[in-house]
Amino acid sequence: MLHYPSQLLERAVDEFAKLPGIGSKTAMRLVLHLLRQDVKAVEAFGQSIIRLRQEVKFCHICHNISDTETCDICSNPRRDQSTICVVENIQDVMAIEATQQYRGTYHVLGGVISPMDGIGPSDLHIQSLVERVAQGYISEVILALSPTMEGDTTNFYLYRKLSDSNVKISVIARGIAQNDELQYTDEVTLGRSIVNRTLFNVSI
Amino acid sequence: MLHYPSQLLERAVDEFAKLPGIGSKTAMRLVLHLLRQDVKAVEAFGQSIIRLRQEVKFCHICHNISDTETCDICSNPRRDQSTICVVENIQDVMAIEATQQYRGTYHVLGGVISPMDGIGPSDLHIQSLVERVAQGYISEVILALSPTMEGDTTNFYLYRKLSDSNVKISVIARGIAQNDELQYTDEVTLGRSIVNRTLFNVSI
Repeated sequence: MLHYPSQLLERAVDEFAKLPGIGSKTAMRLVLHLLRQDVKAVEAFGQSIIRLRQEVKFCHICHNISDTETCDICSNPRRDQSTICVVENIQDVMAIEATQQYRGTYHVLGGVISPMDGIGPSDLHIQSLVERVAQGYISEVILALSPTMEGDTTNFYLYRKLSDSNVKISVIARGIAQNDELQYTDEVTLGRSIVNRTLFNVSI
Repeated sequence: MLHYPSQLLERAVDEFAKLPGIGSKTAMRLVLHLLRQDVKAVEAFGQSIIRLRQEVKFCHICHNISDTETCDICSNPRRDQSTICVVENIQDVMAIEATQQYRGTYHVLGGVISPMDGIGPSDLHIQSLVERVAQGYISEVILALSPTMEGDTTNFYLYRKLSDSNVKISVIARGIAQNDELQYTDEVTLGRSIVNRTLFNVSI
């Protein structure tokens, strides 16, 4: 049990140590770093966190994080509003946006179905997806969840929920990743990459 | 270059990513963690950092971090105010306090002399140490710096600065550490541990 020379210091270290993956030694290092910074810079740091938590919104259509009621993507007429890409979380939206290969909209589930972690369909933004599709303006739903047991379970659940509507349901391609070595690729992935082979195209 | 769906999010992630050892992916993970916490908890986190930076003081005697002008150790009559243990930083004070083997006071230099990093004696709290000793109430100065090139240089510099006064100057023992294996201990340390051997004492 360490004795801190200052209660202010102890409280700040304790707060940092609550963050995931940050132990008390790292917390101490971070706090002492902040102590060496300008007062204004530290105020900006603290305020940015408080303001984020107080003011951030979630888009009422796709549940992505947003500064406005409707996010930039859902309110953008130049995006294809008839296509929905279903993802697990906000980072996945950012990762797909970074590819610049997708011009439709998103739907952030906020997780995947995982009975082991006590996460069922009602804990996710699934009902609002079903309602978006039921309005009849959606032509395609792309399932872009991670290829894990939980992701596959969720894909299957969504497929059943959406199959009554006339929407086209697709799933992102699975195969060997760029720069992966064939001999080290698992059997399921390698088998699938042969079954789902595409015509050779010099432009790819 | 990632496109953030919210400026509030981007600013908070940028602020976290300024911390040492925290990249943008870790920063994002930490910020999304905070977004899932209670508003009150996040406000407490932000305020603890801002308050620390705004209100923390450094003891005018020993330069340790403190909530008051004079720290708890320098103002404690039950500590031996005639002994000063010279350390590099605040963490070293905490480490020595945790041993419960020392009842004197400290002097936090704020670093060690390191010409490579452009740190000279005038960048450290050396003059105030010389003045503390010059007042005549100090009987012993214990040099407790790390056994590195820079630590040894600083030890030597302090020794020359303080040798005019009649104060006793000691240095913490160097030898093999608890649970270290002899065969893997470096020659300098092992040689010193033989030269500076102490009488065997069953109470140790």
